Amino acid sequence: MKDHAMQIPTYEDMLAAHERIRPHIRRTLVLTSDYLDEITGAQLFFKCENLQEPGAFKVRGASNAVFGLDDDQAKLGVATHSSGNHALCLSYAAGRRGIPCNVVMPRTAPQAKKDAVRRYGGRVTECEPSTTSREEVFAKVQAETGGEFVHPYNDPRVIAGQGTCSKELMEQIAERDGGGLDIVTAPIGGGGMISGTCLTLSTLAPDTQIIAAEPEQADDAMRSFRAGHIIADDAPDTIADGLKVPLKDLTWHFVSSHVSDILTASEDEIVEAMKITWKYLRIVMEPSCAVPLAIILKNKDRFAGKRVGVVVTGGNVDLDRLPWIK
Amino acid sequence: MKDHAMQIPTYEDMLAAHERIRPHIRRTLVLTSDYLDEITGAQLFFKCENLQEPGAFKVRGASNAVFGLDDDQAKLGVATHSSGNHALCLSYAAGRRGIPCNVVMPRTAPQAKKDAVRRYGGRVTECEPSTTSREEVFAKVQAETGGEFVHPYNDPRVIAGQGTCSKELMEQIAERDGGGLDIVTAPIGGGGMISGTCLTLSTLAPDTQIIAAEPEQADDAMRSFRAGHIIADDAPDTIADGLKVPLKDLTWHFVSSHVSDILTASEDEIVEAMKITWKYLRIVMEPSCAVPLAIILKNKDRFAGKRVGVVVTGGNVDLDRLPWIK
Repeated sequence: MKDHAMQIPTYEDMLAAHERIRPHIRRTLVLTSDYLDEITGAQLFFKCENLQEPGAFKVRGASNAVFGLDDDQAKLGVATHSSGNHALCLSYAAGRRGIPCNVVMPRTAPQAKKDAVRRYGGRVTECEPSTTSREEVFAKVQAETGGEFVHPYNDPRVIAGQGTCSKELMEQIAERDGGGLDIVTAPIGGGGMISGTCLTLSTLAPDTQIIAAEPEQADDAMRSFRAGHIIADDAPDTIADGLKVPLKDLTWHFVSSHVSDILTASEDEIVEAMKITWKYLRIVMEPSCAVPLAIILKNKDRFAGKRVGVVVTGGNVDLDRLPWIK
Repeated sequence: MKDHAMQIPTYEDMLAAHERIRPHIRRTLVLTSDYLDEITGAQLFFKCENLQEPGAFKVRGASNAVFGLDDDQAKLGVATHSSGNHALCLSYAAGRRGIPCNVVMPRTAPQAKKDAVRRYGGRVTECEPSTTSREEVFAKVQAETGGEFVHPYNDPRVIAGQGTCSKELMEQIAERDGGGLDIVTAPIGGGGMISGTCLTLSTLAPDTQIIAAEPEQADDAMRSFRAGHIIADDAPDTIADGLKVPLKDLTWHFVSSHVSDILTASEDEIVEAMKITWKYLRIVMEPSCAVPLAIILKNKDRFAGKRVGVVVTGGNVDLDRLPWIK
């Protein structure tokens, strides 16, 4: 396992990532809605990463890591710890290359998530739901398999892969009407998508503002941004379960250098924005993805009259438990 | 009000319709899923008409009728009776042309539907939930307004408009991989979408089979097809509420001439297929649209190894009442 800490990925790494992963990902739809434009006063372009085959943008970074391995390392496969979309997407990418993928998941993770990882060919090893247990079990799994560790976000290969999303978005907007975007907004958890967006736009469209969207109840990135150093919450609780993790050194580098602002939304605002999107865009998306629309609806003056790209990050939802149905 | 009965639309009418409506509709996404291909054994191409701005394919036929009116008639606007997507889409199209749209809806129709019609600028007049009342009230509204009657499906302008969907689908499949489709399947209620599909494919792709999908509990089209004449059910009850209406002379013409088969699915099978689509395609679609996937899952031998186009007809769902959540 190499130490990727502070190997800051470059714009060229992102371009190379796009060439590498193009056969394995989708150029996802950019969706608009007259109605959502009307109620926000902005012109919104939703980049639908929920429509990736495994349902999340994380297939970009995972594919870049998997298909960038040399043949010797590839034989040993990849490994990660995650109970969310990264586990799913890494298993999917590894499955496409035909190499092993080992995932350590808390035994308390939803059965559906474990099943989905296995469906893509990933091998699940359970740990107790604590950091100590996860680290112990992961070290053991990695020692046994020799699989390359692919961190969910604090990894230059992953960030370069996520950066391909905003490259595609800018290309699609230009094809549509020759224009650009005033703002791109995406949710922030560990900061992988936002870092990739910073990586790409700081070169490709330096005048486009990047505004990160975070749940009020897990606002560690916003507080870090204001304080000028990483503040990690102990155990934030929010319906936007993809956004509970803290920033790390690599993602903090991008967030502190290129993000214009971080805005937050309450749990009710997130649920309301989620339902509005399901209703008017008619796509299935996770609570985490609703945070950007929630901050737009909450801060209309910041977005009115602007052309705004909104990254819809994922669509893996427990359909039996929708937050607006009690 | 002209009598459109048995003015059978031609392939040229469909081509003219496509030119006419192109600025007012979306060229909707064609979505695929490795997982759904795996469980069906077929290669499925989902034409996502739920992603039209007003959420249904019916915007095609409605736009063709609205934008085909001469200026004198246009001033008087359009009128219809419908409690579903046709009312919404006709209001939307009339709104884009800036002409009046009068809709007669049963007072028992969901408030959300009435609100949606009004949001697009349609004027709602309520009737009692009976055919007699609907006809009386509609005659009165039409006498007062002089609006052109646009039937939800038994209208050559509407059928020609719906036919543009399979034209686009065939073009998109050809762009994707140069191939064609062995089968196109769509739900059947009154038969507007299926008739448009017949109109287009009988000229454009005469070897492509057209298989209609119908709820077991509203199987009047299937029984008509087997009997060789129209059989109308009195009051069918199914969760696929867009599919309760009977065939009429124009749609029967197409169904009886060009449809290869009509297959049915039970209520449970429809709900299961609906949930599978939400989960793996991550799109919001109505129960009616799930019937095609339900018949594919039920008749795998008929579809295995085939390239199958599936028309996802609409996405206007009551999100507070999902059929798999009790």
